[in-house]
Amino acid sequence: MGLIVQKYGGTSVGTIERILRVADRIVSYKEEGHDVVVVVSAMGKSTDVLVDMAKQISAYPSEREMDMLLTTGEQVSIALLSMALHTKGYDAISLTGWQAGITTEAIHGRARIKQIDPERIQSELGRGRVVIVAGFQGISDEGEITTLGRGGSDTSAVTLAASLNAEKCEIFTDVSGVYTADPRVVPAASKLDTISYDEMLELANLGAGVLHPRSVEAAKKYKVRLVVRSSFTAEDGTYVEEVANMETGRVVSGVAHDEDVAKITVVGMPAKVGTLSRLFNTLADNQVNVDIIIQSSYDASVTNISFTVAADDLKKALDTLDRNKNELGFEKVDFEEGLTKVSIVGSGMINNPGVAAEMFRVLAEKEISIKMVSTSDIKVSCVIPAALTELAVRSLHSAYGLDVEETAVVHGV
Amino acid sequence: MGLIVQKYGGTSVGTIERILRVADRIVSYKEEGHDVVVVVSAMGKSTDVLVDMAKQISAYPSEREMDMLLTTGEQVSIALLSMALHTKGYDAISLTGWQAGITTEAIHGRARIKQIDPERIQSELGRGRVVIVAGFQGISDEGEITTLGRGGSDTSAVTLAASLNAEKCEIFTDVSGVYTADPRVVPAASKLDTISYDEMLELANLGAGVLHPRSVEAAKKYKVRLVVRSSFTAEDGTYVEEVANMETGRVVSGVAHDEDVAKITVVGMPAKVGTLSRLFNTLADNQVNVDIIIQSSYDASVTNISFTVAADDLKKALDTLDRNKNELGFEKVDFEEGLTKVSIVGSGMINNPGVAAEMFRVLAEKEISIKMVSTSDIKVSCVIPAALTELAVRSLHSAYGLDVEETAVVHGV
Repeated sequence: MGLIVQKYGGTSVGTIERILRVADRIVSYKEEGHDVVVVVSAMGKSTDVLVDMAKQISAYPSEREMDMLLTTGEQVSIALLSMALHTKGYDAISLTGWQAGITTEAIHGRARIKQIDPERIQSELGRGRVVIVAGFQGISDEGEITTLGRGGSDTSAVTLAASLNAEKCEIFTDVSGVYTADPRVVPAASKLDTISYDEMLELANLGAGVLHPRSVEAAKKYKVRLVVRSSFTAEDGTYVEEVANMETGRVVSGVAHDEDVAKITVVGMPAKVGTLSRLFNTLADNQVNVDIIIQSSYDASVTNISFTVAADDLKKALDTLDRNKNELGFEKVDFEEGLTKVSIVGSGMINNPGVAAEMFRVLAEKEISIKMVSTSDIKVSCVIPAALTELAVRSLHSAYGLDVEETAVVHGV
Repeated sequence: MGLIVQKYGGTSVGTIERILRVADRIVSYKEEGHDVVVVVSAMGKSTDVLVDMAKQISAYPSEREMDMLLTTGEQVSIALLSMALHTKGYDAISLTGWQAGITTEAIHGRARIKQIDPERIQSELGRGRVVIVAGFQGISDEGEITTLGRGGSDTSAVTLAASLNAEKCEIFTDVSGVYTADPRVVPAASKLDTISYDEMLELANLGAGVLHPRSVEAAKKYKVRLVVRSSFTAEDGTYVEEVANMETGRVVSGVAHDEDVAKITVVGMPAKVGTLSRLFNTLADNQVNVDIIIQSSYDASVTNISFTVAADDLKKALDTLDRNKNELGFEKVDFEEGLTKVSIVGSGMINNPGVAAEMFRVLAEKEISIKMVSTSDIKVSCVIPAALTELAVRSLHSAYGLDVEETAVVHGV
């Protein structure tokens, strides 16, 4: 029996009772003869409480001090989970990020892991202990406490699994796996048994996945076998691993959607070298994240550029454009709110031409207008009116043969 | 202007508003040109919240994991105080115990500081920063997070002041200094301007002081000039330093009292070598702290031994004696509850014979019976009925000329 790395998110350790339940699950792995390294997040809403205290002091608290503050959340979880294992008669030890040998870049709030020195963890495992590591945190070469940013605990777990050559890395969360579509929208959605890294990456980037893109990237890079599963049931989860498309036989693995999309069109930009660069660098400098971009020219010297942003960023984007109107030299700006991006994802697309055409046909059949299209090797995204989201997602889910008879069960948060 | 080390207790940083007020005070020192190193405790009741969570999991949580858990409390305080200084336009940096170079014994829950490497602190001071250090915590040579036990933050502050050669170490607390008696009992009590280390040590050991004995010991050892003062007012505090008795001219500096004392008498112990050692080692092994001890023999072969314990420890002490009756070979145990220990403390006693006699006379005059007596060079303690505590303390305070006209003001917790 090999080593397993497990990660439990904030909801899974949200109360003392849940921490005791997590301890029971770890015990069952120990009983099977596994070595276990556990990565935990901060308890439930405890990070929010800390953030709120900081915001009472400063609207823009120092990122270094935020890291100092927030890393206490995981430190509380690891200590309590270790105590819980002790009461069940198992030897366990908690380690902060720096004690676990997790070195990161010297950046606060969003550091990347540079290296893991697994010596301490291995020595504790050698003593038969369950090792409980604080997720989301590390230490810079200068001895500063750092955090990994959003999805950080997943990344900690995957990177630890890689450095320890773990058999697999199980991500315990509040859903039972990766679904073919959001079961709240598509009752016929089913849980996938397996999904490839690339597909998962697309889904994660579409905001549909339960994993943060960074952790999936790390898993792909280090070939870590990931499992996404529920911490509240014994149900099997979804394996994220290198799967040959032949094995699954699927063309499309899932339908994802992202509501609250806004479309902006910059009309009458000068069609010169550097126009796109200037426009999107200006937006990036103002922290506006742009998703789909389409350029259309109606004249040799003038071009129109459309792009989507999250609805929350719309005002910031429009303000930024307005402030830089003269510099960028465009005529005017149009925008449209209340849109949704619907995407189909599947490695099978690579060998199956016409998947995008099929998607357009299905949407047209339902009289759903397509505002924008964007494609990758294994993904097609269409921007449509938000009011038709449910119709679009269900129709596509059905058209690609993903519907199951029984209703999928999703476990509540 | 030299370096000042300041320590703020949990009450002083108990809310965001209070943290901002502490920042204001630190700013005033910076404005005067001082370098400042600040040691802080965990916010108000936050340690209690953490202890309560641990107790929900285990009645006897691992001391190592308790240290892991509890040290988060100070880490939260230092981050928030640093942010508060930033908002006031001052450069500040928070450091955990291990970042501040505080090395301790490899013991959990009550480690002693072995050494402080002030390099990091000095380099941050050199950059003009206020350095905010987490009190109560350190790191062992093995890289384990440790805590210093009760009064730990005071000890951190004093030891840092010593290693940094600070001008003084100011302990900010919820009272405005050291009083000649507890002002809640003696309205005529007054704040002392200065007190010697030895006197403070006696008062601290009597439970009357605002400082933990360990921090006073450290201050005495390293000749650190201590100031005890209120974090809520601008009032001068009490200096704890090497003062010649001539300077103060006082015989008695203060009257302390400790309520909730119980007296136990072990009757008919065999009067042999090793009897006392066996008795008190047995009690110590069972975590019973013994204070005053009196031995009286009524026969060459048999002896009676009386001692006091905290009322809270009475049951544990009686149980321990009961379990070890055969081994210890005594006849029976008597006990008496509802007692108070009243003490007079003053370096002046050394050169003034008859101070104890005067104390007995005052108590006799008020018809207060004395159950036990214990003396040191600079202290006389009498155990009396608790019902007469107020009468005894006020009479002694007056008899030794400590009464002041105006009523002392104590600032609330």
